[in-house]
Amino acid sequence: MREVAVIGVGMTKWGELWEKSLRQIFVETALLAIDDAGVDKVDSLIVGSMSSGLFIGQEHIGSLLADYLGQTPIPAARVESACASGGLALKMGFLEVASGVSDIVMVGGVEKMTDVSGHEATYALGTAADQEYECFHGITFPGLYALIARAHMEKYGTTREQLALVAVKNHENGSLNPLAQFPFPITVDSVLNSVLVADPLRVLDCSPITDGAAVVILCPLEMAKKLKKPIVKIAGFGQATDTIALSSRRDITWLESTYQAAQKAYQMAGKKPEDIDVVEVHDCFTIAEICVIEALGLVEKGKGGKAVEEGLTSLSGKIPVNTSGGLKAKGHPVGATGVAQAIEVVKQLREEAGPRQVKGARLGLTQNMGGSGGSAVVHIFERV
Amino acid sequence: MREVAVIGVGMTKWGELWEKSLRQIFVETALLAIDDAGVDKVDSLIVGSMSSGLFIGQEHIGSLLADYLGQTPIPAARVESACASGGLALKMGFLEVASGVSDIVMVGGVEKMTDVSGHEATYALGTAADQEYECFHGITFPGLYALIARAHMEKYGTTREQLALVAVKNHENGSLNPLAQFPFPITVDSVLNSVLVADPLRVLDCSPITDGAAVVILCPLEMAKKLKKPIVKIAGFGQATDTIALSSRRDITWLESTYQAAQKAYQMAGKKPEDIDVVEVHDCFTIAEICVIEALGLVEKGKGGKAVEEGLTSLSGKIPVNTSGGLKAKGHPVGATGVAQAIEVVKQLREEAGPRQVKGARLGLTQNMGGSGGSAVVHIFERV
Repeated sequence: MREVAVIGVGMTKWGELWEKSLRQIFVETALLAIDDAGVDKVDSLIVGSMSSGLFIGQEHIGSLLADYLGQTPIPAARVESACASGGLALKMGFLEVASGVSDIVMVGGVEKMTDVSGHEATYALGTAADQEYECFHGITFPGLYALIARAHMEKYGTTREQLALVAVKNHENGSLNPLAQFPFPITVDSVLNSVLVADPLRVLDCSPITDGAAVVILCPLEMAKKLKKPIVKIAGFGQATDTIALSSRRDITWLESTYQAAQKAYQMAGKKPEDIDVVEVHDCFTIAEICVIEALGLVEKGKGGKAVEEGLTSLSGKIPVNTSGGLKAKGHPVGATGVAQAIEVVKQLREEAGPRQVKGARLGLTQNMGGSGGSAVVHIFERV
Repeated sequence: MREVAVIGVGMTKWGELWEKSLRQIFVETALLAIDDAGVDKVDSLIVGSMSSGLFIGQEHIGSLLADYLGQTPIPAARVESACASGGLALKMGFLEVASGVSDIVMVGGVEKMTDVSGHEATYALGTAADQEYECFHGITFPGLYALIARAHMEKYGTTREQLALVAVKNHENGSLNPLAQFPFPITVDSVLNSVLVADPLRVLDCSPITDGAAVVILCPLEMAKKLKKPIVKIAGFGQATDTIALSSRRDITWLESTYQAAQKAYQMAGKKPEDIDVVEVHDCFTIAEICVIEALGLVEKGKGGKAVEEGLTSLSGKIPVNTSGGLKAKGHPVGATGVAQAIEVVKQLREEAGPRQVKGARLGLTQNMGGSGGSAVVHIFERV
């Protein structure tokens, strides 16, 4: 198995991009990654997208995007694992390079979510849950994560304010990221006084509906070493599943798929949680970030809320989490998120993160999650 | 890169399975493949499905199916390339084993298409075309393939009867396949007198709407050699794209993505078209089979219709095509088709195809196609 490096990254401003179509957004983003990598063609394209069928009435976007990038006849695939589609695309791209089948692989993620009504978007997002046992009976994702939040508060004493502090931290970081959908700070008070969505979660506990894409270029590490630029390799990855429905889990406060994926990634990279310098996690809701940092082993089980309160995960903390602004402030075009997480970590390891740079970061981790944790993908990146 | 073998196959009766859900259909099918392989667990699951979102309102089926198979926390991915999703899943499964990341990989395809109205199914299938430039303006897939058929008739003198003979041949083969949706013969007259769908294509030129799944189990060839059963390895594969819209092509009678994918597969396997003993191709419409056998190099460009008329591709012909009954008679649950093609070829190479056995078959090929040829995946299988 060949070692794999990330040699190019591209991301454009995320938000409600009503004047652009999915193909435009993707192509603009892909061209930035191609420029950054300094390549003039790619051998294969893998795109993560959760539900282009329900959001824009278009499947087969592998073919569509290879076509609009002028890259036919290259192989092109779309992969999907709900909101973890981007992370899955990265894993599949890794396999394509590691196996020796392709040298230069473009891995992208894209979602165009604002061409439908809020009701339709909620339905489309609900397809990440077990529809027949969950959403068809009336619950939607804020409701599922509200159940998790209530259970975590009950079991571990996590407070409403600690949840709010996750959003405040991520907006603080997002205010330093010009590509973020919401590049401005918010306060605990504004979270606590925002509209109630599903008790105890309020609208400022929730990641937004976003249009956007993110693209990285992979190649064999040996080939990357010939380029005159900082090299970041994918040191490890892990992918895992859990029951898709919350009702089937022994403990809904514990994200088993994230735990399993992380264990595999740590093992493959030969690293431990305490080795990691910078982390991007899947904060689709504030409670998610708290559960995720526990499952990753960055903090003890039940101590996620306290860790945020104590500033452990702040930009200047011991283990900065979501320096990009996270899903909360940067936005969450679902299929693109996992790839954007990789971009943030690569920028940190290349020391290109500007005002949000974590000094001396050499090892970064991304955690991307589908549904209420039915799937998870973890990658570990290392500055070579 | 490790060599990869197919050690288990499973398929259940295809048709309008109104009494079963997608998860039931898949699990029943997967258990057959597990039994056939003689394994008691798998390391990873990859599922091809074109549009579970539009057909049943459920994405994230990697997680769903790993869960209902009792296989969590294994990694599970859904991949999509429209009607070539099954072939794509097989390629991704190959990478997973070849790279050394996983040993025993389940590759499945599934689609549940009959829970929606005919109009909704037509819309869902149209998402394989360039919606913004094709279907949103009124054309659907029978219309796109009718354009190809008319051009082929005009350019090469292909006749209406030759188109009908593709359907007649495939129903003849399908009548020998008890798992086929339509296991009975039809006549040229019945095709020519069936309802006109998009001139010159009639309803008996079209593959049906089908519920069904197909599952294979892969492992490293070295591991397969320890099993006491006939061994079939994946000797080569190729995947390619073409412009997604017909209007962008130089010659709509030529399937460039199939040509490119086939060239790569032949090269990887070290084989030529004339070496192949048995072939499964993507006859979503009768004209498609004619164009595909030309692009695969099995017959000369423009001679596909004549080849069918002369019996070259019949069960007893020089190069039997679609011994399973093809999409036309076996059915076409879109995401499952590419995997079912592999199953037919594996059965032929194992000499388990019963009354439709091609004697002494050692080398087989499958060709799976997305949309009107926007993507294609070709695999070559060899009895070891």
